[in-house]
Amino acid sequence: MGTPGTAEAITAKIAQLQEELKGLAPVKKTKTVKVSPLAPSDFPDLPVIAGARFAATAAGVRYAGRTDVMLVHLAPGSRVAGVFTRSATRAASILDCQEKIGGDGAQGAAIIVNSGNANAFTGRSGAEAVARVTEGVATVLGLPSERVFSASTGVIGEALPHDRITAALGTLGADLSEEAIGQAARAIMTTDTFPKGASAGCEIDGKPVRIAGIAKGSGMIAPDMATMLVYIFTDAKIARPVLQDMLSARTDRSFNCITVDSDTSTSDMLLAAATGQSGIEEITERDSVAGRRFEEALGSVMLDLAHQVVRDGEGATKFIEIAVTGAADDEDARRVAMATANSPLVKTAIAGEDPNWGRVVMAVGKSGAQADRDRLAIRFGDLTVAENGWVSPGYKEEDGAAYMKRQELTIGIDLGLGSGTATVWTCDLTHRYIEINADYRS
Amino acid sequence: MGTPGTAEAITAKIAQLQEELKGLAPVKKTKTVKVSPLAPSDFPDLPVIAGARFAATAAGVRYAGRTDVMLVHLAPGSRVAGVFTRSATRAASILDCQEKIGGDGAQGAAIIVNSGNANAFTGRSGAEAVARVTEGVATVLGLPSERVFSASTGVIGEALPHDRITAALGTLGADLSEEAIGQAARAIMTTDTFPKGASAGCEIDGKPVRIAGIAKGSGMIAPDMATMLVYIFTDAKIARPVLQDMLSARTDRSFNCITVDSDTSTSDMLLAAATGQSGIEEITERDSVAGRRFEEALGSVMLDLAHQVVRDGEGATKFIEIAVTGAADDEDARRVAMATANSPLVKTAIAGEDPNWGRVVMAVGKSGAQADRDRLAIRFGDLTVAENGWVSPGYKEEDGAAYMKRQELTIGIDLGLGSGTATVWTCDLTHRYIEINADYRS
Repeated sequence: MGTPGTAEAITAKIAQLQEELKGLAPVKKTKTVKVSPLAPSDFPDLPVIAGARFAATAAGVRYAGRTDVMLVHLAPGSRVAGVFTRSATRAASILDCQEKIGGDGAQGAAIIVNSGNANAFTGRSGAEAVARVTEGVATVLGLPSERVFSASTGVIGEALPHDRITAALGTLGADLSEEAIGQAARAIMTTDTFPKGASAGCEIDGKPVRIAGIAKGSGMIAPDMATMLVYIFTDAKIARPVLQDMLSARTDRSFNCITVDSDTSTSDMLLAAATGQSGIEEITERDSVAGRRFEEALGSVMLDLAHQVVRDGEGATKFIEIAVTGAADDEDARRVAMATANSPLVKTAIAGEDPNWGRVVMAVGKSGAQADRDRLAIRFGDLTVAENGWVSPGYKEEDGAAYMKRQELTIGIDLGLGSGTATVWTCDLTHRYIEINADYRS
Repeated sequence: MGTPGTAEAITAKIAQLQEELKGLAPVKKTKTVKVSPLAPSDFPDLPVIAGARFAATAAGVRYAGRTDVMLVHLAPGSRVAGVFTRSATRAASILDCQEKIGGDGAQGAAIIVNSGNANAFTGRSGAEAVARVTEGVATVLGLPSERVFSASTGVIGEALPHDRITAALGTLGADLSEEAIGQAARAIMTTDTFPKGASAGCEIDGKPVRIAGIAKGSGMIAPDMATMLVYIFTDAKIARPVLQDMLSARTDRSFNCITVDSDTSTSDMLLAAATGQSGIEEITERDSVAGRRFEEALGSVMLDLAHQVVRDGEGATKFIEIAVTGAADDEDARRVAMATANSPLVKTAIAGEDPNWGRVVMAVGKSGAQADRDRLAIRFGDLTVAENGWVSPGYKEEDGAAYMKRQELTIGIDLGLGSGTATVWTCDLTHRYIEINADYRS
């Protein structure tokens, strides 16, 4: 390359850059993004899952020079379970995955995901793009296309430039590695400010079982089934229906309990793949020692990833737990929790570090749940703020104000009526959310 | 007073100001507020309603020097109908009004409203404050307290300084005037940037019947019954149950079809008072020539006021109509309309003048209504943006972008399934909403 600064070095650098830019038109500039203040300090060290290999590349789907496609290969014998958005305007890839999810795992499987374009509400062209991409992956990896699951995330209503993705498949196939899950996590980011990963393990039959998961999600987060894109890998050997049951049950306690902005995506998807390579006996019952142990570990990965999505909520500066107790039933508790978590007035008060508990009272009132003003109690962390229908005698506004300065907040709401409970997680609503979303496409 | 600028004039002015400031502590500074760009050019000329007299004053409920209490006296024979929030955490005044609303009008009635403090979630002290204020009004006006309707709007959870209100009742009673409805409209404002008034008339039995209404509302607007505070006065002679039926029916097509931020107040209230002094025969049937004619005029006043509330939505820069057609039924149409109107992503896109119709697709999908991607059509004004499951062949992005620059927008959504329709009105979500609500109490 020669000495830096020489004409030779400069010419070489230009040639290298020209090479990197090939085929990436139309070029859009990547915006520089500040990492969420709620982000974990580092991407975690995820365990290798035998039988799962990953690759990522910058295919120029929408932006130049941004890693935007991930490919996962799952060894023969892998079982795949999935949970999908209930949106009535589901994206083409979701419809395709829903058809394929029950299939047999004998030949292995693959997952291909692009960011930058959601391929949603793209009519016939959407389904065709899914077919081109999944058939391309099938050819490169020697799989039937029925075993290739695809997903797309990004802007809605624009045709997916599937040729840019298929052009990258050769490289992706050659790059597959058990170590590359972190790069895969980066490839699926859109407005995310950090890649999301989590892992857990358990011992079954004296053998270690590993679980590693990645997720993306930041805005349009109020999942109605799964959230955004989540991929979980394990070397457990487990019957597909059992894995599916566990996944559905745990989704209701993790991804379905988070909300950033009350808006539900057209493309939410959660896949869990079990390669079976841990050498354990197959788990065939959810309600068995091995089943419970595995589900516990799976659930912890799911909850960790769900929390990370909230921590990267668009514009978020506060991570908020809303814990409702004493409701007439669990459904009422969830109504109150979600009404509070989705209230723009509650979320802006928290952004302003204002202990405006009156807005929590408002949210309880509008939720539709059974409530009795004079039995309602509201807590900020350990502070009892309101009880018996009014501000608590011991509550001091300055204590509330001091509490609100924290980055992690718990709002406790006790309805004093029954034993229904629900806990959900959300973030605050700030100027940055408006900035991000008032000029997303410009 | 002497020549302006002389020592005498200055001393007189100081004395006058001191007088005005008496009893107004603790003094909070009124923030200067820019009038909404969507405001009408002027407060309308409202007709005099014989039998309805108004007064307003600055009682210092929360802020000094801000008109914050209005009093209305209704002549004997006036009938009063009302619609109230369905919030489970209703304010004390709402509970009191609900008990009183069915009463007999022979002795007349009064309405007393303060801004600055909502007297909501204030436990026993809330009900006591309502009793003190309504009894005070009853004494000053020579009415039974069962005929005094009160309302409070402002911050939730702080005790109402009812003594400041009762101290002002003598002045208010002395100031009552048929001409002062505009001052009354100003007295009930909180974060409102302009006073809201509307009128309509009709002829019954060859005699003119007049209707005049005032409203307040700007944030915490997603009424679940009535919206914020609305007071409508008419000289029609009409049976109370008939007036009540009309009011309830028309509320579902006006105030219950607007949303600013999806948050429902603890204090929403709509009262309509008919003094009967127009000299017409009593309207005793809703479904009669006179009944239909009057209801039409009443409905137009209600819709006008509802639109004014949206036009003064916190931070609003765009007035948006969401018109849904072709839904399986009206309920589904309303689900889609409200999901779109309350979507933060749709509202921020409009704030950014971004014709991001994909977010409308998302809102349709999440609404829970029956929808078929391939029958869905989306229009911005007269522009067909999307149809048959994808962007319309004739649609050009620059046309959409030009349309979004308007101040008044119509988003048409046709589901292509049935004959269900709904129309709702909302505004955009801007930085100003965050500014207003992140430091409301500071």
